[in-house]
Amino acid sequence: MHTYNWAILGLGNIARKFAQDLALVPQARLHAVASRSLDKAQAFAADFGAAHAVGSYEELLAVPDIDAVYIATPHSEHYANALLCLRAGLPVLCEKAFAQNASQAQEMIQVAQAGGIFLMEAFWTRFFPAVNKALELVAAGHIGEVKHLVADFGFNTPYQPTSRLFDPALAGGSLLDVGVYPLFISQLFLGVPSEVKAVATPAPTGVDVNCAMSLAY
Amino acid sequence: MHTYNWAILGLGNIARKFAQDLALVPQARLHAVASRSLDKAQAFAADFGAAHAVGSYEELLAVPDIDAVYIATPHSEHYANALLCLRAGLPVLCEKAFAQNASQAQEMIQVAQAGGIFLMEAFWTRFFPAVNKALELVAAGHIGEVKHLVADFGFNTPYQPTSRLFDPALAGGSLLDVGVYPLFISQLFLGVPSEVKAVATPAPTGVDVNCAMSLAY
Repeated sequence: MHTYNWAILGLGNIARKFAQDLALVPQARLHAVASRSLDKAQAFAADFGAAHAVGSYEELLAVPDIDAVYIATPHSEHYANALLCLRAGLPVLCEKAFAQNASQAQEMIQVAQAGGIFLMEAFWTRFFPAVNKALELVAAGHIGEVKHLVADFGFNTPYQPTSRLFDPALAGGSLLDVGVYPLFISQLFLGVPSEVKAVATPAPTGVDVNCAMSLAY
Repeated sequence: MHTYNWAILGLGNIARKFAQDLALVPQARLHAVASRSLDKAQAFAADFGAAHAVGSYEELLAVPDIDAVYIATPHSEHYANALLCLRAGLPVLCEKAFAQNASQAQEMIQVAQAGGIFLMEAFWTRFFPAVNKALELVAAGHIGEVKHLVADFGFNTPYQPTSRLFDPALAGGSLLDVGVYPLFISQLFLGVPSEVKAVATPAPTGVDVNCAMSLAY
């Protein structure tokens, strides 16, 4: 049985959860971690037993025997981080929101396809047993034709202009952070909408504090 | 104690429910009923013990001692029916949807105000004990500031192009029939939205089979 050597690029809270879960997967091992801070990388590597810790994302490319890179930086960095890895031939699992806009996402996919390199958005809800069961029940016709779907996701957080969630430079806002989940669920069950109409409440920084959408099919 | 003499204009299913409920109200009596069919009016009057039954809406105006008229015709007729009664000086309780559009509603209100005559939309959900309790809890601050509200209403019905629900000439469509309820609940708790965006699925007749809206405040 091959054991896959994982690297993590970007070592925030979600990277920590990922590392905790990776330890439960028999065929996976945390092999390398990369942060813009070497101290942070070394501490993270020590916590999870990773063999390699580097203090820049570029240095990660020189670490031998990486099978896949999990990108866990803020949304604003996904495009650059994914291209960095893909161009070095490293398979990528990239956190949602995958990119800041469609043209970034298209370029990421093009580079992956041109190099024949695995690239995937780390959309965990797609693999929830409950979601798979719901898909199965719908496919089997148990609820008849799906005519209407309501999905939402929200949480309460204090306004902090410099935080990832509110800073436009870090691709803040509710849509990119949690709005992608209900949109994804809609797409999973109903496909690509013919029309999308949205309203949002702006934070003082300009990003959306909330966002409501109506999709037509 | 004064007993109010009610008249009903339009004798469909909802009118029948109204008459059943009116019988439970000590200060109210079903006094007159009007249909475009005299047979239907007489049968309805017999079922509910109304003193007067007439075979046209115009004839209702000649019936003595009416205190209020409940208008239960299809949405398409509310404007004409309400104006008929108001211009005869009869107070009106008009079923939802109140009118087909804003200009009709404005004219109905203007005529009522000019004549000093009572006019009200029969928006029963406004008076549900659960709605009043929710308003009370919100006003008391029990859930903090209301930031987000989800409201919907739907039912399953077969497509029949000539039915009230699907015929554009009868002001068919989901928005006027049931969409007004979640819109009203939104307005009750959050006020008038600054922006409304909607999508709809059209029936072959062109009316909306469903309608989804996102409101901004």
